[in-house]
Amino acid sequence: MKINRQLIGFKNSFTLESGKILSRFELMVDTYGELNSDASNAILVCHAFSGNHHAAGKHETDATEGWWDQMIGPGKAIDTNKYFIVCPNNLGGCAGSTGPTSINPASKEPYGGDFPVVSVSDWVNSQKLLMEHLGINKWEIVIGGSLGGMQALEWSLSYPHLVNKAGVIAAAAKASTQNIGMNEVAREAIRKDENFHDGNYLAMRTKPKRGLKTARMLGHITYLSEEHMNLRFGRKVQNEDTKIDGYVDFEIENYLKYKGEKFSDSFDANSYILMTKAMDGYDPASKKNGNLTKAMEPIKAKLLIVGFETDWLFPAKRGKEIQAAAMNANVLSSFVILPGNQGHDSFLFHTPEYEKILSNFIES
Amino acid sequence: MKINRQLIGFKNSFTLESGKILSRFELMVDTYGELNSDASNAILVCHAFSGNHHAAGKHETDATEGWWDQMIGPGKAIDTNKYFIVCPNNLGGCAGSTGPTSINPASKEPYGGDFPVVSVSDWVNSQKLLMEHLGINKWEIVIGGSLGGMQALEWSLSYPHLVNKAGVIAAAAKASTQNIGMNEVAREAIRKDENFHDGNYLAMRTKPKRGLKTARMLGHITYLSEEHMNLRFGRKVQNEDTKIDGYVDFEIENYLKYKGEKFSDSFDANSYILMTKAMDGYDPASKKNGNLTKAMEPIKAKLLIVGFETDWLFPAKRGKEIQAAAMNANVLSSFVILPGNQGHDSFLFHTPEYEKILSNFIES
Repeated sequence: MKINRQLIGFKNSFTLESGKILSRFELMVDTYGELNSDASNAILVCHAFSGNHHAAGKHETDATEGWWDQMIGPGKAIDTNKYFIVCPNNLGGCAGSTGPTSINPASKEPYGGDFPVVSVSDWVNSQKLLMEHLGINKWEIVIGGSLGGMQALEWSLSYPHLVNKAGVIAAAAKASTQNIGMNEVAREAIRKDENFHDGNYLAMRTKPKRGLKTARMLGHITYLSEEHMNLRFGRKVQNEDTKIDGYVDFEIENYLKYKGEKFSDSFDANSYILMTKAMDGYDPASKKNGNLTKAMEPIKAKLLIVGFETDWLFPAKRGKEIQAAAMNANVLSSFVILPGNQGHDSFLFHTPEYEKILSNFIES
Repeated sequence: MKINRQLIGFKNSFTLESGKILSRFELMVDTYGELNSDASNAILVCHAFSGNHHAAGKHETDATEGWWDQMIGPGKAIDTNKYFIVCPNNLGGCAGSTGPTSINPASKEPYGGDFPVVSVSDWVNSQKLLMEHLGINKWEIVIGGSLGGMQALEWSLSYPHLVNKAGVIAAAAKASTQNIGMNEVAREAIRKDENFHDGNYLAMRTKPKRGLKTARMLGHITYLSEEHMNLRFGRKVQNEDTKIDGYVDFEIENYLKYKGEKFSDSFDANSYILMTKAMDGYDPASKKNGNLTKAMEPIKAKLLIVGFETDWLFPAKRGKEIQAAAMNANVLSSFVILPGNQGHDSFLFHTPEYEKILSNFIES
């Protein structure tokens, strides 16, 4: 599989939905496979909130395979022998694209807390510029899970003539009150870390690692299914020798702390806040007085909507809402509920049934 | 209604389940109504994790009515004209009973992080001493919601001959993996507050208020029903003039922060950790190789088990597990699922149906 990783600069100023302007920006982009001669085989893969451009394969600088390697590759559901797959790190992220850790050209310091609010629409608009840069006239498919699914939906709404198919997986047309509440608890943990300094921690040569760890521990619980947690960890007591700290009693505590700790080493706290705020803010129906059907009427793409039975972050019924609106808006759509025993994270994991549904949709 | 509030001292040393010993302790206790001549009308009400002895009425020093005032009072479901109701603040709490904020007789400083781990059994054993002190030979009823329900269940197990009836409301026979995970996120937020100082913050003349606020925000989400949150707050944007801080966008964010802030003013962080650890650790079946039926065989009391449809902290199915074990163990029990649109907190709120079920059980 041909992996091409590039940092692409966009030199014109870019106006965000908020009205704020970035004088220029860069996107870190992976592409897999090759664009065919009439540029008709391009697939855009949009990442979820803590994902990045590294969706598949293992570049020489990568420690592991990409986050959707089970689905993207030669002969896989998203077949790199046939398709040219594009996956950018989102604007505002922390894996190479312009974001809070980048240098603000105005101040010559990291943006930090001054990085502007970014929305799902902003991502789609920046990906539109990327599309033009790569010489792609139309996406065969735009696809993603969770926050990536919101981007796929928004693509089909914002640029109906530029998308043949959209795959909206483990997503919702808007965050629920509980989603927002959970995200705010996570953000509160970060902001109240003594090292947060109103987002300007890099200038202070520090990082709010503790807050980020707590935030991720909570996030992690919402990504797993309750049943899976019960089966895997139950009420098992953590072995004394492998306790992460003296406060641990149960295995689940140790596991969450380990995961949180690891995440806090690599992720940026301002990006965490920005990404969750984009998720909370997404609500295309709000532009049509809360009427999702009206919002979806412009869509030309065929939709695949996938929900997972054990997902409690964006339960399958949230996908059903999208499909109901699609049907009322005369948008061609399929809606599938898969068992997926990994909760919300099921969208990341291969099962034969899941693969078949994706490949049937892609080849249809 | 006669309200009597007293601080009762227990001068003998008290050995905890952990093996640790308290050389003496005090319990802050409310009683309502009057004990009859043969001491046969006593009801023990056990509080939930952030509750206290003030269950009903309004004592001259109280700002508000007690936490179960809707159910306890003259002519109410738990009728103070007929019964003598006892409600102690649990050992390890922060509302007057001996706990982490009390002075350690050994060091003459507040216990702080040195206060020993306390279990549900320890509470029941301390309440047994209280029972003797009050001259009660047998409880007509022991009743409580949430962690209070765990105490009611444990009373019926530990002292089968001292309990006629036990009301186990919105509770579970053990915390789930997800319950433990959520509690650990809350504890992590507290411990990683810069003012926590390993629990010895009082000696440092400070309090981990920020961590406690974050912990309570998360807790609060788990107490509410998702549907209720959607109906009450939805995605409503907070009015600019009433924002608690500049980070708030949605009403739900403001509400959680307001509630968290208020809680962090009054509650003690070490008690928060201690109470949630007691909840996580409770598992009577563990003493019988995980067999709850075996654990429940000694029970002589008649059980009322109540679950609420919208409760996702201890869902109604957790009550059903208790009832199934009761049936297998030949323990007389009734199990009722009520709609309760307040989620887990439904156990606190009066509805005619809920009141009828409680009073029928009490009068049966």
